[in-house]
Amino acid sequence: MHKFEEKTIHTEKLFEGKVVRLQIDDVELPNGKTSKREIIKHPGAVAVLALTPENKIVLVEQYRKPMERALVEIPAGKLEPGEKPEVTAVRELEEETGYECNRLDHIISFYTSPGFADELIHLYLATGLRKKENPRAADEDEFVELIEVSLEEAIQLVKEQKIFDAKTAYAIQYLQLKEAQK
Amino acid sequence: MHKFEEKTIHTEKLFEGKVVRLQIDDVELPNGKTSKREIIKHPGAVAVLALTPENKIVLVEQYRKPMERALVEIPAGKLEPGEKPEVTAVRELEEETGYECNRLDHIISFYTSPGFADELIHLYLATGLRKKENPRAADEDEFVELIEVSLEEAIQLVKEQKIFDAKTAYAIQYLQLKEAQK
Repeated sequence: MHKFEEKTIHTEKLFEGKVVRLQIDDVELPNGKTSKREIIKHPGAVAVLALTPENKIVLVEQYRKPMERALVEIPAGKLEPGEKPEVTAVRELEEETGYECNRLDHIISFYTSPGFADELIHLYLATGLRKKENPRAADEDEFVELIEVSLEEAIQLVKEQKIFDAKTAYAIQYLQLKEAQK
Repeated sequence: MHKFEEKTIHTEKLFEGKVVRLQIDDVELPNGKTSKREIIKHPGAVAVLALTPENKIVLVEQYRKPMERALVEIPAGKLEPGEKPEVTAVRELEEETGYECNRLDHIISFYTSPGFADELIHLYLATGLRKKENPRAADEDEFVELIEVSLEEAIQLVKEQKIFDAKTAYAIQYLQLKEAQK
């Protein structure tokens, strides 16, 4: 029995897409009353804080349809079914940036929107980067532009709200903390 | 014209709930081809890093149905239509913790899942806390337990994956960075 557990009385599956699934759960609350929960199921994702030998942060700019604007983010992508997050991280780094890495360290994993979605992002630090010959191409509906910036420039992009997403803001703050702890 | 803009050819609205809306956009890509985008629309939210006079972090534990487990998070909640984020922050802090604050400072705003959702979270630092007499009650389907921890204890909760969400992990790292920069 989990604390405040909400027992599922009924699940109605409303949509199954390529990225997300939507379901409505009727739940029994801890006080015996009932309520409804709107739930987005997501396969999970990885994000990669990749540092070049010159200590630049590798970023990608891409159009994000939900916001109708371009955002600058660290490379990221969805897990394929059954795929280990480390494998996704190496693949997405190569596809989106053309880099391969000598070393991949797990930084943290977190849910992005626990109120309505189960998306879990695994964040990695990639070092020992080098450009790969003939890297795998990005998905055919993916258009990204590579940007490499110093930590100071990245902090400026956060201030300008060009960097404007949780995983990238976390990754930059992580580097700031490492610098401050030196 | 935005970079890599994806022009909407058609929008199909599939679901309108109390928390989220789901739509599928047919888009024209920069290369003239077409694709589909699954998009979750969300009203936006606030999260509050609240520090007691004893410098403890105010956390709430609650059951999160999408993950089928309880998570420990900083107080947070959705924006009501037309509500200013600062007002939501004060209201959610009171409802979930019984505290009011003398001072509210904006830390950062970020999208949580820009690949499929437009949820924007505004993160605030609340200080000068005091317990309010007769605080507003939480929503009737909301069951939360208050926890107050030191920064060191919060870092431990992250390691144990009891704290396991982006906004709370960001907030704790923010405090770590402030401490390290002292």
